[in-house]
Amino acid sequence: MDLKAKTAKDSFVVMTELVLPNDTNLFGNLMGGRLMYWMDIAAALAATKHSNAPVVTASVDNISFESPIKLGNVVHIEAQVCRAFTSSMEVHMKVWGEDLMHQFKYKSNEAYYTFVALDPNRKPRSVPQLVPETEEEIRLYDGALRRRQLRLILGGKMKPADANELKALFAKD
Amino acid sequence: MDLKAKTAKDSFVVMTELVLPNDTNLFGNLMGGRLMYWMDIAAALAATKHSNAPVVTASVDNISFESPIKLGNVVHIEAQVCRAFTSSMEVHMKVWGEDLMHQFKYKSNEAYYTFVALDPNRKPRSVPQLVPETEEEIRLYDGALRRRQLRLILGGKMKPADANELKALFAKD
Amino acid sequence: MDLKAKTAKDSFVVMTELVLPNDTNLFGNLMGGRLMYWMDIAAALAATKHSNAPVVTASVDNISFESPIKLGNVVHIEAQVCRAFTSSMEVHMKVWGEDLMHQFKYKSNEAYYTFVALDPNRKPRSVPQLVPETEEEIRLYDGALRRRQLRLILGGKMKPADANELKALFAKD
Amino acid sequence: MDLKAKTAKDSFVVMTELVLPNDTNLFGNLMGGRLMYWMDIAAALAATKHSNAPVVTASVDNISFESPIKLGNVVHIEAQVCRAFTSSMEVHMKVWGEDLMHQFKYKSNEAYYTFVALDPNRKPRSVPQLVPETEEEIRLYDGALRRRQLRLILGGKMKPADANELKALFAKD
Amino acid sequence: MDLKAKTAKDSFVVMTELVLPNDTNLFGNLMGGRLMYWMDIAAALAATKHSNAPVVTASVDNISFESPIKLGNVVHIEAQVCRAFTSSMEVHMKVWGEDLMHQFKYKSNEAYYTFVALDPNRKPRSVPQLVPETEEEIRLYDGALRRRQLRLILGGKMKPADANELKALFAKD
Amino acid sequence: MDLKAKTAKDSFVVMTELVLPNDTNLFGNLMGGRLMYWMDIAAALAATKHSNAPVVTASVDNISFESPIKLGNVVHIEAQVCRAFTSSMEVHMKVWGEDLMHQFKYKSNEAYYTFVALDPNRKPRSVPQLVPETEEEIRLYDGALRRRQLRLILGGKMKPADANELKALFAKD
Repeated sequence: MDLKAKTAKDSFVVMTELVLPNDTNLFGNLMGGRLMYWMDIAAALAATKHSNAPVVTASVDNISFESPIKLGNVVHIEAQVCRAFTSSMEVHMKVWGEDLMHQFKYKSNEAYYTFVALDPNRKPRSVPQLVPETEEEIRLYDGALRRRQLRLILGGKMKPADANELKALFAKD
Repeated sequence: MDLKAKTAKDSFVVMTELVLPNDTNLFGNLMGGRLMYWMDIAAALAATKHSNAPVVTASVDNISFESPIKLGNVVHIEAQVCRAFTSSMEVHMKVWGEDLMHQFKYKSNEAYYTFVALDPNRKPRSVPQLVPETEEEIRLYDGALRRRQLRLILGGKMKPADANELKALFAKD
Repeated sequence: MDLKAKTAKDSFVVMTELVLPNDTNLFGNLMGGRLMYWMDIAAALAATKHSNAPVVTASVDNISFESPIKLGNVVHIEAQVCRAFTSSMEVHMKVWGEDLMHQFKYKSNEAYYTFVALDPNRKPRSVPQLVPETEEEIRLYDGALRRRQLRLILGGKMKPADANELKALFAKD
Repeated sequence: MDLKAKTAKDSFVVMTELVLPNDTNLFGNLMGGRLMYWMDIAAALAATKHSNAPVVTASVDNISFESPIKLGNVVHIEAQVCRAFTSSMEVHMKVWGEDLMHQFKYKSNEAYYTFVALDPNRKPRSVPQLVPETEEEIRLYDGALRRRQLRLILGGKMKPADANELKALFAKD
Repeated sequence: MDLKAKTAKDSFVVMTELVLPNDTNLFGNLMGGRLMYWMDIAAALAATKHSNAPVVTASVDNISFESPIKLGNVVHIEAQVCRAFTSSMEVHMKVWGEDLMHQFKYKSNEAYYTFVALDPNRKPRSVPQLVPETEEEIRLYDGALRRRQLRLILGGKMKPADANELKALFAKD
Repeated sequence: MDLKAKTAKDSFVVMTELVLPNDTNLFGNLMGGRLMYWMDIAAALAATKHSNAPVVTASVDNISFESPIKLGNVVHIEAQVCRAFTSSMEVHMKVWGEDLMHQFKYKSNEAYYTFVALDPNRKPRSVPQLVPETEEEIRLYDGALRRRQLRLILGGKMKPADANELKALFAKD
């Protein structure tokens, strides 16, 4: 089957969640794990939009949580596919917190989740190629190869010495 | 305040969860985000045991999900602090799925979450140093520096050229 | 206090939810009550954005559910304030279901929820006036008076004979 | 199939819920959407009792929330079918809050939800006629026609000028 | 403080719950633990109605689960205080399942939970005495002493040889 | 089918849960019913490990709640099968609360739940015999007969006069 390429924008998903008591720790801040749960759903929706197939989470890249998000604040998640490989897709997310009463919106974190599309027998299936359009989309598309090498190294599936994209990075001064 | 060092084992936490319908995707498999939520709680408990202080999730390292965990199966999470820094702690987790009816236990993934201990004013506070004892604990303790450099680079807080531990890795053939 | 008027667009909120097993009835369709719960949160966020104050739900207008939304489908809710009164705001919502696998998006329903902004003593407080801009926003703004009369009549706070806006409607042939 | 008529009382359902932290807004009061979720279940049970068939929510009439219900208070919902049409049923609900510690019970709101009974192919199926007995049941039974006209008008399925029951209402002085 | 005695009926509470997917095991039947959770809330409400004070669960008597309750069926719980002691109350519950579509209602189990009323310093406080009225209420009131002795023996707070009420029972042939 | 006997230890399960806001009453303490829900899952897992078959809760013995477990504290549940009968298994649990910040661990309660193993037609099926090894396991194994007689008496399935194990207990001075 010859799948028609799609733009990055085609997969764009916005999710908005209100932080309720059971989502918070003893400081009244959103627990990291609860946020990762919402991010997983937002990213899975973006990957499903791109592939029109059911998807499963294959991996999650390093996430660094910058600002705590408070009880009663809002979480905004924007998810969009960066690049499609044979049957996998890397999804980029930006997460903000917002205090609607004080009109204060703050960056929480960015993240990359990778998903695999499955056929009805639960085997990986081909997904359409992704065409980046904006400058940011092109930057994310290009970086996807480097992040993929890192994932393979960290997963023990590639030797660091074979990771040409990453080696270049460490050689710079 | 001079905090008494603790062993890695002191922070050991075991968590067991049953996969219920609302935790699953359309294939009847545990959603990755739901697992990351449970892992966040297990790891936070290990970090709290080590620091005897409330903690917040600072970052999550690359996670790769190997085998799907099915509805009605059990999730086992073992969490233990690898290394303590000034006010942060790296926690290592091993996750298995288990089909109790078929006595079949399978590896799902491993992961590293990092937590920061806070004082009552929500400022970072010192945590006890960690003393690794077993061979595996020493390996995890040693690797913690390298993983920390990677986190700093990925978080834009260190230049790749300054990451000596990692550079050595990429220089190997 | 003299509050600066705001546009309708300033209050715009998009919410996206995935229908999970516990949200569904025996047919595997989203329960109406679960949808009204999500709509209440989306609308409350829009009203909070407009008023920059905590809000409580005052009333909900007639809702008619057109198409069932299936398990695993996505719910899209777009909420925006139509008109601000002294301390209350009417919020309009459009709700769609979407089957991401079959690229099929379908209208579920439209609704109007009304919120009151509260001060720290839980008394109603003034909210900024709303300035509609687009043709649709103006239509919603104008209709708000008529819907308000209907609410007052249905709530037993206005006699039908005094509802001039509505009377005109029934007099037409 | 000739279905035997049933009394209104045959469909009577009482639901009692305790308001927990995750049901509340920042004021510690029950969120309107959470209440509408419980009401949907209570009303669906009443409609299922009347029809002995699975039902889906077709519409919800205007609801006005009078008194906030506090964290730790109890919600009482009494639901009963008012009138049965060919395949749809209108259910009336009365909702109270109760502070059991202060023996203080207060009216929260009343509402009408409409349900459609479905056959195994998810097509509307006939439901038994309803026989009102008490004075209040007769009043609710009679008012059902007028509310139905209003629903049809608000749903754009009837012209106001054709709504004789409602027209009479607005003609009064 | 001299508290006015109350009737058993004064504490009567009815709870109705719908069995949703997340409440069920792999057979699609309500999990015992989920039912005990609902029973705890129903019984706590009855004890709070009697004492007009916050209560905590002190103990639960033997429960035997007779018939499984299916997904989509309804759970009915009727709770009423049997007898009040100084600061504790024994609550009796009857639980039924009901398949509303097949008009089939079946006994699930009976149970006794005991609660203690607390004052604002979380110390036990006196509760009103209970006056049983019907034959069944008197039978439950009388049996409460015997069940209390059994609780004390099972909790290691009374020697079997001192339990006169129970001894009589075992002496019979 | 001749099932190979198993040790008690083979069925051992540890569960760890964090007390979140929605698990607590107005005093900020874990609700008894929520704890019984977690205990039901832990015990069911132990019984499933022993029988390698799906199980359903048959009964719960007297439970006495000793110390309240606070919001933010941890619940530890250790579950292990005490004795296997033809198709049923008695599971013993020990429950502790722990305040990780103050390194304070306290006993909450002990309990016995009984489960029945089912075949694919939902009929009771044989389970392996259990071989106790440690002194405590032998004590629990021996006591299981006595507890079973009590269950049968309380369930109305045995006359007190026929309960020889229990009679001996009450005859002592």
